[in-house]
Amino acid sequence: MTLENRGLILYGAYDLKVVKLPVPKPGPDEALLEMGCVGICGSDLTVWKRFGMGGNKTVHPKLLGHEPAGTVIEVGSNVTALKKGDRVAVEPIIPCSQCEFCKIGSYNHCEKVTFSGVHPKDGALQKYYVHRASSLHKLPDGVTLEEGALLQPLSIAIHAVKRGGVIGNSKVLIMGAGTIGLSVLLSAKAYGASKVIIADVIESRLRKAEEMGADFTYKVEDGEDEQTTVRNILKIFNEKPTISFECAGEESCVRVALKATKDAGVVVIVGLGTPEYTLPIFDAQVREIDIRGSYRLCNDYPTALELVLNKKIAIAPLVTHRFAIDDYQKAFELANTRQDNCIKVMFHV
Amino acid sequence: MTLENRGLILYGAYDLKVVKLPVPKPGPDEALLEMGCVGICGSDLTVWKRFGMGGNKTVHPKLLGHEPAGTVIEVGSNVTALKKGDRVAVEPIIPCSQCEFCKIGSYNHCEKVTFSGVHPKDGALQKYYVHRASSLHKLPDGVTLEEGALLQPLSIAIHAVKRGGVIGNSKVLIMGAGTIGLSVLLSAKAYGASKVIIADVIESRLRKAEEMGADFTYKVEDGEDEQTTVRNILKIFNEKPTISFECAGEESCVRVALKATKDAGVVVIVGLGTPEYTLPIFDAQVREIDIRGSYRLCNDYPTALELVLNKKIAIAPLVTHRFAIDDYQKAFELANTRQDNCIKVMFHV
Amino acid sequence: MTLENRGLILYGAYDLKVVKLPVPKPGPDEALLEMGCVGICGSDLTVWKRFGMGGNKTVHPKLLGHEPAGTVIEVGSNVTALKKGDRVAVEPIIPCSQCEFCKIGSYNHCEKVTFSGVHPKDGALQKYYVHRASSLHKLPDGVTLEEGALLQPLSIAIHAVKRGGVIGNSKVLIMGAGTIGLSVLLSAKAYGASKVIIADVIESRLRKAEEMGADFTYKVEDGEDEQTTVRNILKIFNEKPTISFECAGEESCVRVALKATKDAGVVVIVGLGTPEYTLPIFDAQVREIDIRGSYRLCNDYPTALELVLNKKIAIAPLVTHRFAIDDYQKAFELANTRQDNCIKVMFHV
Amino acid sequence: MTLENRGLILYGAYDLKVVKLPVPKPGPDEALLEMGCVGICGSDLTVWKRFGMGGNKTVHPKLLGHEPAGTVIEVGSNVTALKKGDRVAVEPIIPCSQCEFCKIGSYNHCEKVTFSGVHPKDGALQKYYVHRASSLHKLPDGVTLEEGALLQPLSIAIHAVKRGGVIGNSKVLIMGAGTIGLSVLLSAKAYGASKVIIADVIESRLRKAEEMGADFTYKVEDGEDEQTTVRNILKIFNEKPTISFECAGEESCVRVALKATKDAGVVVIVGLGTPEYTLPIFDAQVREIDIRGSYRLCNDYPTALELVLNKKIAIAPLVTHRFAIDDYQKAFELANTRQDNCIKVMFHV
Repeated sequence: MTLENRGLILYGAYDLKVVKLPVPKPGPDEALLEMGCVGICGSDLTVWKRFGMGGNKTVHPKLLGHEPAGTVIEVGSNVTALKKGDRVAVEPIIPCSQCEFCKIGSYNHCEKVTFSGVHPKDGALQKYYVHRASSLHKLPDGVTLEEGALLQPLSIAIHAVKRGGVIGNSKVLIMGAGTIGLSVLLSAKAYGASKVIIADVIESRLRKAEEMGADFTYKVEDGEDEQTTVRNILKIFNEKPTISFECAGEESCVRVALKATKDAGVVVIVGLGTPEYTLPIFDAQVREIDIRGSYRLCNDYPTALELVLNKKIAIAPLVTHRFAIDDYQKAFELANTRQDNCIKVMFHV
Repeated sequence: MTLENRGLILYGAYDLKVVKLPVPKPGPDEALLEMGCVGICGSDLTVWKRFGMGGNKTVHPKLLGHEPAGTVIEVGSNVTALKKGDRVAVEPIIPCSQCEFCKIGSYNHCEKVTFSGVHPKDGALQKYYVHRASSLHKLPDGVTLEEGALLQPLSIAIHAVKRGGVIGNSKVLIMGAGTIGLSVLLSAKAYGASKVIIADVIESRLRKAEEMGADFTYKVEDGEDEQTTVRNILKIFNEKPTISFECAGEESCVRVALKATKDAGVVVIVGLGTPEYTLPIFDAQVREIDIRGSYRLCNDYPTALELVLNKKIAIAPLVTHRFAIDDYQKAFELANTRQDNCIKVMFHV
Repeated sequence: MTLENRGLILYGAYDLKVVKLPVPKPGPDEALLEMGCVGICGSDLTVWKRFGMGGNKTVHPKLLGHEPAGTVIEVGSNVTALKKGDRVAVEPIIPCSQCEFCKIGSYNHCEKVTFSGVHPKDGALQKYYVHRASSLHKLPDGVTLEEGALLQPLSIAIHAVKRGGVIGNSKVLIMGAGTIGLSVLLSAKAYGASKVIIADVIESRLRKAEEMGADFTYKVEDGEDEQTTVRNILKIFNEKPTISFECAGEESCVRVALKATKDAGVVVIVGLGTPEYTLPIFDAQVREIDIRGSYRLCNDYPTALELVLNKKIAIAPLVTHRFAIDDYQKAFELANTRQDNCIKVMFHV
Repeated sequence: MTLENRGLILYGAYDLKVVKLPVPKPGPDEALLEMGCVGICGSDLTVWKRFGMGGNKTVHPKLLGHEPAGTVIEVGSNVTALKKGDRVAVEPIIPCSQCEFCKIGSYNHCEKVTFSGVHPKDGALQKYYVHRASSLHKLPDGVTLEEGALLQPLSIAIHAVKRGGVIGNSKVLIMGAGTIGLSVLLSAKAYGASKVIIADVIESRLRKAEEMGADFTYKVEDGEDEQTTVRNILKIFNEKPTISFECAGEESCVRVALKATKDAGVVVIVGLGTPEYTLPIFDAQVREIDIRGSYRLCNDYPTALELVLNKKIAIAPLVTHRFAIDDYQKAFELANTRQDNCIKVMFHV
């Protein structure tokens, strides 16, 4: 049988089209996948709207999709760990394995990294897709392809939770209840956080957070000043959080997190925002609150997969809407407007 | 109203008697308590049978009881954090606060430490008992006196779990399903362990472990050689544990833990055994398995209390039998023989 | 013999006077000292100029002096570790020993802390001075009183170096070559830093830094833009520093440190500056550079003393000028103008 | 010009011979080296005497040599980081880069590792030798080939020092003053140890240790009981070491280290000994002394090289004897008998 490939190409800002594509051939260390599920991420929306992101405008691939899962249909000659029919989650990051950072296990800082669907390799929003086999994670029975696709944001969250050092009895504040904020909620709980409060400006997201296990939520009102936000959060929480996560990409949220966090605590910045933030550093300094950025993920897929498999994390409810690849217009618009209680939009390819 | 004090005195091996005692007076930094619950610990049994323990034979107090909780009936002149009527858990360790180890927060190594009911201060198996106020932990509504008394073994377990570095997705092996082993089970789960297997020679304890959340159990048969134990545990667990806890005080259990644990993992020795162990050190060395002893507790009561309060740990089921202080004979014998599915014996004073 | 006490009182901005004072009596846990050396610190200058500092205006003591060393002339009834004639360094921080932070060994966050000469206890710029004995550190033969006084800034530096995690082969950038910057230089070297570059705007301080072991120095020119500073530092250093220390209390120096530091590195903020800084957080986040404030000191005096005693740190050259207490006017003015290659001004009381 | 290769082959116990060998061809990711210096290691002696070691008897290569340095004479087609004429140290460990342990940066636990000259790849005791280019470390001017060869034992030592957590002001005990013990001495000093005592049974090695920077030495007498050894070491050292290293491969030395080490300290086992040790575990447990094995090395070559380059470590004096490859008989016998103050025997190939 001859395979026919189709994929979703971005030709310019807001200009997507499904077109025929050649079927890629796997190299000796690669596998050819028939894609199942691919999630839309916030950075996909940015690229869709700007036809680029940050300094990568020209090199960004036109084929998006970096939250994918699919089924192996062919493996390269060196590949022994996978075989035809295996369902896999695709870790989009392919590190070089030989640079200084790869050797010490910090491959999110690899200088020669490839990030499929982000930079510079084509993403997975196509029917057939090739990926390095050692960056594919086999899904055991009991883990769905949709969950497989969700391992990507979950791994981002687990990386952040490890950066923050969440352990048993940590008290956690999360600013932002989107896909990443909610994934941090799930991950922090799985790492032993005993109390979690999550704040957002959208009421429906806070309801979702409650369903997914948040102990407390706080709705930030329009135009609310930061002292009020801090005071209200601490009043509801009844103590200071020991570790806070910024998952909204907003200076104001980092500020609230710094002011609310307990002495000798940690603030992890997960959301990507503007290049510069003005922050209350003096107060953070004398209270020795560490400020730690969290970037991408690093060795987190296996943990994410095991936590889903062992029922420590129920990630499936993040998906609120599902689309076929041909309904791309509706899918991207909904993900962008966040209407209809939308959290995660998932393509079933 | 004049108070009358009675307590359980150990006059020699197996020679306990309830006698009248003077009512102690609290010093300026102390509180007088009316005792509620006091648990019997394995070390109490040792002292009961030998009229001493290790090198402390002569100085061991005759008044046992180091797992206590009670109600404040009078406070010293400097005490402001507690008042009459407050229910409290008694942390039996009173560190000096000024030595090198106290200053760095490792007060379990304080050289001038007092351990009530162990060395050299009288324990709490009496109706009225005085303790330093700063080592009393106020019990909020919703935490019972029995749970307050259980905070002591739970704190021992939390200290061990911190020593082992349990975090999210840790895979844990526990050798020994007595009070400490079961408390480690609860604590490891609260710290994020995603799979726990617990082994013991007593079937009923393994049933208890299952009720309390063990994912897998393994019954060690009489005379079973250690390779068989290791092989069977790994077969059931389907992978190597990353962190193992020895909670039985047996060389053989440490050996099994070392052999079963994954490369670069940790074995925590919690149970107190004989002075010397013969261990497969070469194998542990080349696989870089750290061997860490865990001794007493250190800043763990607040964590233990919060985890119970926040329903992250259900400690109450550990208590299998309750006695009045006058039924001491039955209580000590039952705790010693471990019959009738006995785990923790609790005095209601 | 009747003792007569004299001390240096601050009556208002720039208004110092030496006056007669009562001789303080040591309490049971205290010692009476005859002061030997007391250093002038940057925060002393701030108080001298503003008659207050930050929010502590009204409660700041009028008797400054928090870098002291002296000789015991009387001890309280409970004091056994010291005796008349012992020379001691005075650790100005007296923590409560009983709060949450003291118990875990982080007494720089103690909420009931007393900081002599800063808040609210009188400082040591007087002939006779009383201090809690457990916060006095006995000076062995071979350590001078002047070195004893210098243990205070050295402990600040060691605390910062521990916060930064300096180990063997760390590559270190220090922004600011005053007393603290130079002490961080000495401490970082003692902790194994294999290459240190230090930057300042004052040429003479860089000469001092070279004498004290800096491998490289960089003079920041007036009005130099931050990209130039970063580029020049990296060119001289020939690689990116792994750990950087801000010791000048300037936003611009934190910015340079963040931009210069290697991926997955650390920037420690030691200098106290303005309440808010505008920082290139996005870049620090994606490169996962941790930002850690360092506040005061915590269990660092013993380390500082041992490193001086074992000749791992030569702290004495920091003192550039010495004055009697009656020459206070000259002393404060020199310390303030930093003329005459002034680094540390020391009173010999 | 046609190259001719010769190498030292082990045909059986004590049966070495220099024979002609084919000149190996580098693969695309490899480099062909002309060997300069190759050190003899203790494990080489074991293989020489037993024609095997441990369980690897049959697969051990007949071509020894795992402490090599040489000069590149040809590179494979993919190699860009090296060129003809570059002098390099050969890191004998070649990890797979793709397994679980490699990905997290712990490649000393890689299950598919190749260790040249140990298992199963031929070693470097030949004139021409091929190695993976990414495991070659280019030597800058100022680092000799002999120092390049010594980077191997130095990396072993640095790995041990990292395992032990040596930082500024650590107090270190080293049991055994052979090549590894002395390398640990140098490394511990470079990581900030402020006092080091080293013990051995051979007087001349202690003299060497003093020359190389040991603060104290202790000669263990024949038949000395362990309590005496511990007591004498502590008397000389005047305090308890915080971190101890066993570098002799002897149970008795581990025992002394455990007993001598300070509460909450660390004992690192570096020397490879017999499969089982009988140890005073109870005492180590209640004093919470961590026991950590150190195995091979992992990402330590770059550190070792920089410390030698930056003059933080003077490794050259370890070489006491030099031989041409044809003098193999004398070389192995001297290394084995340790006569003539022999520490490290180096082949100049």
